[in-house]
Amino acid sequence: MEAVTAIKPLIRVAALSGSLRKTSFHTGLLRAAIDLTKESVPGLQIEYIDISPLPLINTDLEVNGTYPPVVEAFRQKILEADSILFASPEYNFSVSAPLKNALDWASRPPNVWADKPAAIISTGGGFGGGRSQYHLRQIGVFLDLHFINKPEFTLNAFQPPQKFDAEGNLVDEVTKERLKQVLLSLQAFTLRLQGK
Amino acid sequence: MEAVTAIKPLIRVAALSGSLRKTSFHTGLLRAAIDLTKESVPGLQIEYIDISPLPLINTDLEVNGTYPPVVEAFRQKILEADSILFASPEYNFSVSAPLKNALDWASRPPNVWADKPAAIISTGGGFGGGRSQYHLRQIGVFLDLHFINKPEFTLNAFQPPQKFDAEGNLVDEVTKERLKQVLLSLQAFTLRLQGK
Amino acid sequence: MEAVTAIKPLIRVAALSGSLRKTSFHTGLLRAAIDLTKESVPGLQIEYIDISPLPLINTDLEVNGTYPPVVEAFRQKILEADSILFASPEYNFSVSAPLKNALDWASRPPNVWADKPAAIISTGGGFGGGRSQYHLRQIGVFLDLHFINKPEFTLNAFQPPQKFDAEGNLVDEVTKERLKQVLLSLQAFTLRLQGK
Amino acid sequence: MEAVTAIKPLIRVAALSGSLRKTSFHTGLLRAAIDLTKESVPGLQIEYIDISPLPLINTDLEVNGTYPPVVEAFRQKILEADSILFASPEYNFSVSAPLKNALDWASRPPNVWADKPAAIISTGGGFGGGRSQYHLRQIGVFLDLHFINKPEFTLNAFQPPQKFDAEGNLVDEVTKERLKQVLLSLQAFTLRLQGK
Repeated sequence: MEAVTAIKPLIRVAALSGSLRKTSFHTGLLRAAIDLTKESVPGLQIEYIDISPLPLINTDLEVNGTYPPVVEAFRQKILEADSILFASPEYNFSVSAPLKNALDWASRPPNVWADKPAAIISTGGGFGGGRSQYHLRQIGVFLDLHFINKPEFTLNAFQPPQKFDAEGNLVDEVTKERLKQVLLSLQAFTLRLQGK
Repeated sequence: MEAVTAIKPLIRVAALSGSLRKTSFHTGLLRAAIDLTKESVPGLQIEYIDISPLPLINTDLEVNGTYPPVVEAFRQKILEADSILFASPEYNFSVSAPLKNALDWASRPPNVWADKPAAIISTGGGFGGGRSQYHLRQIGVFLDLHFINKPEFTLNAFQPPQKFDAEGNLVDEVTKERLKQVLLSLQAFTLRLQGK
Repeated sequence: MEAVTAIKPLIRVAALSGSLRKTSFHTGLLRAAIDLTKESVPGLQIEYIDISPLPLINTDLEVNGTYPPVVEAFRQKILEADSILFASPEYNFSVSAPLKNALDWASRPPNVWADKPAAIISTGGGFGGGRSQYHLRQIGVFLDLHFINKPEFTLNAFQPPQKFDAEGNLVDEVTKERLKQVLLSLQAFTLRLQGK
Repeated sequence: MEAVTAIKPLIRVAALSGSLRKTSFHTGLLRAAIDLTKESVPGLQIEYIDISPLPLINTDLEVNGTYPPVVEAFRQKILEADSILFASPEYNFSVSAPLKNALDWASRPPNVWADKPAAIISTGGGFGGGRSQYHLRQIGVFLDLHFINKPEFTLNAFQPPQKFDAEGNLVDEVTKERLKQVLLSLQAFTLRLQGK
């Protein structure tokens, strides 16, 4: 008799990249994450949300409690997501301005980040983007995000073996497996917080 | 005989506000700082640098080592300054996206923040903007900024007596005196680091 | 017919105070928390754990994987707890040495903090002990603690109305109600993570 | 004619290790730093200050403004130093309890850390002890320490080539050269702040 694998409830993950570069490694990590969910993480559906169109935050742009259309559309995507996956580059020992801009816009009343499970993946030199993660976690306290603790994912992008190709695609199998563990942990923590 | 007050060498301070709101309290604090230098802090010359025109950072906008004109102009202002005064609002327990965007652009090679003395002033609810200052200080380690330690300036904008008017102008004399102490400390630390 | 209030499963909370002072406000907050659970938070049972006997951490004191008896006893208390309540004073903008000492000892293999829900309460001057909380939360990432995000509890101990008496007992009813909200939030988050 | 090398004024550096282990890599780094000053950094005199005898901080031990003798002796050593060198291990993503204990005791009124230049060296796994440095820098804001920004010194102790022997002595020449650069930077920053 075939083992009946319990069908996991679908979890919709909004994925944001904090780098706007065309060949960004962080956007490449998110493409790899989307591929992984299709191949080997049933029940997790990741949607990449482009944050580049968002204007630099200025609350004067809010008129009678409504936001510019591009901001409203972005907030709606976050609201509908069950969980969040942040690809967070480290710019100057902290969160990049584009990612902070997205965090700031979606925090405007009503805060659409509230009570959502989340995970962070980073890559770069030295600490592999790690310092930005602790600032992002502190931001999450106010936004009421529930970050998974483990596994942490920081990746030195420049040490052999090659990690990314010229277009920013992740090409290292060991790293893909590490990335999969993050997705599985986010899935489990989301189900746990949903009481499923 | 009149006491000859030693003429202090001129220190040019670039002042940035992390809020783009027209009636921003932080921009109001900088206006008050500029008035104070004219009235009672000889030797300190503060110039307000508008960061709102800067595009959201995307290193694809860098072509053959040159930056978009508006970025080049901003970088030049920072390069020419002797010290920096940051008016740093706390957005979601951290530095606001507009201020981080300015930090990120001026950090691009060559980093024009390097070795400059700096001070931070913040206002807001609860901690008066304080949390953003510790993230900004950590950013300063990588940018090689030398922040004064004392006095710290955080200000609860909403507790009596009134602090700001409807246009965001600072209207509280006690706070103006506190702000003056920050300017005097920045002046002294700048002269000290300049060996004067 | 009397409404049958669902009997909540018992949650055992280990409570630590980061101050060793006899009349510590933080230890006083924990006494108040214990009284509150008896009066109005059924299902939550708080035990105060004295961390003062712990030696200053030195892993040379670990012999063949065992710890000094006083450390073993402390680690066992933490292991048996369902959740943790930290009364965290702010010493020099960070966690106090006694509290960090307890955190460090119970983190030694096997880490007995792992996967436990937790909450932080602080009091003091200025930010009411707040800065220590963000360092403690970062420590919690490595220790795999799940801190509640809301409500945060920081308390200015020196602003009227009086908060503590000479023995460090909490005497302010408004603050007791705030403290109760932390306990209810910790209870709910613990049950949620336990899947109950 | 022999080039007359300007004789640099003597700078006395108090060096603290945040690990009490007999074969601590951090204490080993300080021994290497002391050797380096004798060999190749004239004008810098490092004294290792043992923090293990300090009791766990409890302000009840302060009687009529005086501290326990062992604390008074430690505070005096810090007061007499021109600069401070912290060997800061990362325990659970933050400063170790023994180092925080020393920081807390010497911060008691009058704060003997005030206005002293300082540098941090760390070693360990992953980030080479780096996370502890940003918490220590935040502590330094309140203690009024002036940390050098560059070079940062974090060292992965476990990646080849071998860094330490069984007694914790630094055996890697490349690392010794990096350590020397920290000492030269601390010396230069101290002289700069002293106006020499």
